[in-house]
Amino acid sequence: MSDFINDSFLLNSDKAQHLYDTYAKDLPIVDYHCHLSPEEIAKDVRFDNITSLWLGGDHYKWRLMRACGIEERYITGDAPDKEKFFAWAKAIGNAWGNPLYHWTCLELARYFDIYEPLTEDNAQEVWDKTSKVLSENNMTPSYFFSKSKVELVCTTDDPCDDLKWHKKIREDGKISTKVLPTFRPDPAYETASSGFVSYVKKLGKVSGIDIDSLDYLKSALSLRMDHFASMGCLLADHGTEHIPYKIMDKDTLDKAFVSLIGGKDITPDEKLALKTDIFMFCAREYARRGWTMQLHFGCRRDNNKAMFDAMGVNIGCDTIAGSFDVITPLASMMSDLERDDSLPKMILYSLDPACNAQLDTLIGCFQKGPSVMKIQHGAAWWFNDNIKGMQDQMTHLALQSYFPGFIGMLTDSRSFLSYPRHEYFRRILCDMLAESVNKGLFPDDEKRLGMIIRNVCHDNAASYFIKG
Amino acid sequence: MSDFINDSFLLNSDKAQHLYDTYAKDLPIVDYHCHLSPEEIAKDVRFDNITSLWLGGDHYKWRLMRACGIEERYITGDAPDKEKFFAWAKAIGNAWGNPLYHWTCLELARYFDIYEPLTEDNAQEVWDKTSKVLSENNMTPSYFFSKSKVELVCTTDDPCDDLKWHKKIREDGKISTKVLPTFRPDPAYETASSGFVSYVKKLGKVSGIDIDSLDYLKSALSLRMDHFASMGCLLADHGTEHIPYKIMDKDTLDKAFVSLIGGKDITPDEKLALKTDIFMFCAREYARRGWTMQLHFGCRRDNNKAMFDAMGVNIGCDTIAGSFDVITPLASMMSDLERDDSLPKMILYSLDPACNAQLDTLIGCFQKGPSVMKIQHGAAWWFNDNIKGMQDQMTHLALQSYFPGFIGMLTDSRSFLSYPRHEYFRRILCDMLAESVNKGLFPDDEKRLGMIIRNVCHDNAASYFIKG
Amino acid sequence: MSDFINDSFLLNSDKAQHLYDTYAKDLPIVDYHCHLSPEEIAKDVRFDNITSLWLGGDHYKWRLMRACGIEERYITGDAPDKEKFFAWAKAIGNAWGNPLYHWTCLELARYFDIYEPLTEDNAQEVWDKTSKVLSENNMTPSYFFSKSKVELVCTTDDPCDDLKWHKKIREDGKISTKVLPTFRPDPAYETASSGFVSYVKKLGKVSGIDIDSLDYLKSALSLRMDHFASMGCLLADHGTEHIPYKIMDKDTLDKAFVSLIGGKDITPDEKLALKTDIFMFCAREYARRGWTMQLHFGCRRDNNKAMFDAMGVNIGCDTIAGSFDVITPLASMMSDLERDDSLPKMILYSLDPACNAQLDTLIGCFQKGPSVMKIQHGAAWWFNDNIKGMQDQMTHLALQSYFPGFIGMLTDSRSFLSYPRHEYFRRILCDMLAESVNKGLFPDDEKRLGMIIRNVCHDNAASYFIKG
Repeated sequence: MSDFINDSFLLNSDKAQHLYDTYAKDLPIVDYHCHLSPEEIAKDVRFDNITSLWLGGDHYKWRLMRACGIEERYITGDAPDKEKFFAWAKAIGNAWGNPLYHWTCLELARYFDIYEPLTEDNAQEVWDKTSKVLSENNMTPSYFFSKSKVELVCTTDDPCDDLKWHKKIREDGKISTKVLPTFRPDPAYETASSGFVSYVKKLGKVSGIDIDSLDYLKSALSLRMDHFASMGCLLADHGTEHIPYKIMDKDTLDKAFVSLIGGKDITPDEKLALKTDIFMFCAREYARRGWTMQLHFGCRRDNNKAMFDAMGVNIGCDTIAGSFDVITPLASMMSDLERDDSLPKMILYSLDPACNAQLDTLIGCFQKGPSVMKIQHGAAWWFNDNIKGMQDQMTHLALQSYFPGFIGMLTDSRSFLSYPRHEYFRRILCDMLAESVNKGLFPDDEKRLGMIIRNVCHDNAASYFIKG
Repeated sequence: MSDFINDSFLLNSDKAQHLYDTYAKDLPIVDYHCHLSPEEIAKDVRFDNITSLWLGGDHYKWRLMRACGIEERYITGDAPDKEKFFAWAKAIGNAWGNPLYHWTCLELARYFDIYEPLTEDNAQEVWDKTSKVLSENNMTPSYFFSKSKVELVCTTDDPCDDLKWHKKIREDGKISTKVLPTFRPDPAYETASSGFVSYVKKLGKVSGIDIDSLDYLKSALSLRMDHFASMGCLLADHGTEHIPYKIMDKDTLDKAFVSLIGGKDITPDEKLALKTDIFMFCAREYARRGWTMQLHFGCRRDNNKAMFDAMGVNIGCDTIAGSFDVITPLASMMSDLERDDSLPKMILYSLDPACNAQLDTLIGCFQKGPSVMKIQHGAAWWFNDNIKGMQDQMTHLALQSYFPGFIGMLTDSRSFLSYPRHEYFRRILCDMLAESVNKGLFPDDEKRLGMIIRNVCHDNAASYFIKG
Repeated sequence: MSDFINDSFLLNSDKAQHLYDTYAKDLPIVDYHCHLSPEEIAKDVRFDNITSLWLGGDHYKWRLMRACGIEERYITGDAPDKEKFFAWAKAIGNAWGNPLYHWTCLELARYFDIYEPLTEDNAQEVWDKTSKVLSENNMTPSYFFSKSKVELVCTTDDPCDDLKWHKKIREDGKISTKVLPTFRPDPAYETASSGFVSYVKKLGKVSGIDIDSLDYLKSALSLRMDHFASMGCLLADHGTEHIPYKIMDKDTLDKAFVSLIGGKDITPDEKLALKTDIFMFCAREYARRGWTMQLHFGCRRDNNKAMFDAMGVNIGCDTIAGSFDVITPLASMMSDLERDDSLPKMILYSLDPACNAQLDTLIGCFQKGPSVMKIQHGAAWWFNDNIKGMQDQMTHLALQSYFPGFIGMLTDSRSFLSYPRHEYFRRILCDMLAESVNKGLFPDDEKRLGMIIRNVCHDNAASYFIKG
């Protein structure tokens, strides 16, 4: 059973192996979307426990453990680290078909030279070996960046953030990886949330504006964008269950905003129109600044209220939302922006894989030179971040678009050990390309195949966020 | 063309053959969801005509015959049995890609030693051979149970049913297969149906309660559950096109119920809220009793009103419902139940395969030890009960869950000849597992592979419904 | 790299090659749905420029070029033809996974004897060779029809069309291909469109009826159907984003129609009910005449208003519509028609591939002998017209229906060079059939396999539209 992870992992033909080894394997990583902590990067903190590294905040793993029947004490509770690790070993060892199985194998192989899958049988052995490696090496963010050839990392940051850790990273200049912030203003447009008013107050304080009108909110957001831009920001990200699109006139919006901020009730439609207006204001600002706007939608969060009350957000109780019409509001919003010549570069991520074809046909309506693939359909997101999800996303994208322009993979992770997901993606991509050649669906033309691999695995993202 | 059904059917590699032969083939069957007649089981009735056995009530076959252009007289009309059989032979012989083709082959092979596909060419031969076998053997329910090693059968029963045939089966003790009832209270919560009031009256009579309030309806349902429990029931089943979720206060519900029962009009919202309330009352009762709740949704029934008027329900005029949001009401209901610590074990079945990913991410929000996979995504249902449907359901489930905890296959059938569907499922499962090993996606570890197969094909269902 | 398109293209086994060569390759083409110009056919116009032939009106290609970052001037603008061709070569040469890649290869091979893929490297060579072939041959509609063995072409025509070009084609009798019109009355039921009133006026003028009531609109439509019937029409086509289904009484409808025609405002519900009524009137007329009704739905058109304002419709800014419930209105409408014995033969086309399973189970509710597959699920449409889309459509159809009754492929094209799409379809079909035989899922019975291929590739469509 040893050497489960070997050179040919996921590569089902000699051609696939050749393409991977020749064109993909050694490319640096541009990780343009993740949830790493700038503070941990700036401090270059040392990790010395596989449990905290793996199980500390990873709700993907928590879900699998719960499904396996493991009690919460061994997942997020007060059980000792070693017992938690053994519980995890028990769950993952039999998790046939789950991407965590491969991720776990790859992380053990790439950072700890363990090539055997983790199971309840070898848990002690793996515990010992990882402890030894962690104690003998200075395993810090810069270690993982360097080991995995990470060229760029874009973190995800609140508009109110002072970005001091980003500043420190810049000023210290100790790590060669470029680290940039991403502007994520969700709380500034979630007008139906109970936290909206207090967030607006906080934003006002941070930006030095007394926000008593919608225009001032926009001014404050613009100032924060300036601040983010001063730290090199090129990227924004909006998360929302559904795309807002409800147009009302400026007067109505202004009054509704004042009422809302003043603690008065406004109608759901007014809230939606305000959300739409702030959302689109941001989009226009991004276009003006040459930023790229990411849109993550189709997730229904915090579904288990008992768990939410006990533990809060991001604990593994999120789901793909039910079927809904995403195209009408999204197409309407994009059309309005394009009409004003204010449509930014966009990356759309949908959580429901049943929407892949819809999105890939939608983006085709708004492509515009000289940008190649100005509007992108982002890599398979979250629950789709697995072999099938990636194959589906790339297949549909290629069917409807110009595939060599695809911006490629990201980790979306909170962990410094997740870079093998890029390897996973690259192996799957090379296998797909090779299969198409082996089946006579594309010519065996290395010039083009190599170009596609380099573009999708590195160059496209680099030209968006490094050169661009 | 002879021996079309051979040992390697559906097994595309030596590994698949080995796994099937070693671990799956001889396992007994736990058929925890079907529509067999307890009366026919109790009487151990003899079947002696392939037409009545196959075409008597099987609307799957009727649909195929209609699509093939066969006139209704030869399907459900007054044509002689032999002519109907010949019409069926004509339809099935060319039905490339339809699961009925394989089911027909397997049923002929396993019960009649016929290994050649049925066609219009050999219809006479097959007619003669099946007639001979039927006349020479005592082909009764107990014969089929024994031949197919059926350990448990759960029928589907109305709350008003006195379960006398179940009682007789128990008392007679003639068959070794355990036969248990399933509590299916659809008419007790379908408040918008014209039959609701009369059903409540009937339920009142059966339970000895004069149901003039919502509380009394609940008491009556509870008494019926007691009666079902006394016959060993461990399982309920709710069918509904959409999941109801509309919360109203108790006073409003009480008044609405009294009005409805009194023949007065109430609003659609009140009907929905009543349905929700009765639905959730049942769920809480199941949780209290340690029963498992099945949920079948996403089917639009009786779409052809002309056919419905002529022939009634279950005649082959049902369809997958259009796209709708199942997650919002279902997640809301499950969250409310969990908050009260009243969420029963559940098996969710959706008719639309485009919802597989949605459901598999939803169930992850409500898993809770020490149960393994407390919330299940049930096996590919009805129109999905085919190779592609099963592969899709299992692939998605494995991607998002702990696959060795999957409760596995059921027949959902009205026929005693349907047990080869378990063989079909097992062959497909073993082929998928073998393919993953052959491709290097899972280690060739027989201990784990054998455990997964035994769990999914038998042990998980057995521990839910036999030991549990 | 030469001979990329060879005999075994898309045929992954000897069996597939054998089936294609023996049964599919030489069958004539019945192209029952396209958008060719009857005028160009009647005039048998000569084409002598590959750019106008390929890029003149093909919005599929325009979309790919825009995604590739090519500026509009080289797509629909005033750049010289040769520069446009070179821009196209640049886009298509790397378009891995896009069906246009294969279509382009097949069209070059079948009409120009060029077997190498077009790229930016050989663009000059291909330009020269195609120019030479075009100058040396009389490449006209009749040339392409004859070269591709096209037996029947059904164009798509407005009810107001006088069909004079159809008449001329008939009277001239110069081409052996049968050319028939299709009745496409979309503007006569799009009651919410700003062009409705003027269209009704135009229809009144053409039919010699002063349309001042809903009944007169129906009379006019009926007269136009008579006219189309006199030109051999057997087929209608309705396009609509959503299926209309809103029933109102005749009085209300009559009044609403008079108001609408008189320039007064009516409610959205009244518009929808009028649309439903006219839609269903047409369906009943088709049933009475033995015509077949095509239904194309699920497309959201003209999404980019800036482009629409600049260039109009059919310029590549259409998308699959968002998820919505198509089954409820469609099943309701079909049931009403069936109840009155007025349900015509139908071909349903959905643009969202996630609806395949829904549609295939719906059609099963309305099948009725003696027609084989009276209600069809049409071939993979538009954005689905590719390998994956065809495989999905055929797989789902076969799972739920009688596959040998499938009416098969069409081009849906505006170009006379699109006939290789039938070859594409046939190769994919033969490969699927062969794979099922090779895997032991269907017997190696050439009688049946040959029959299925002939039926699906030619005979079923021929019996609908030539013999029928």
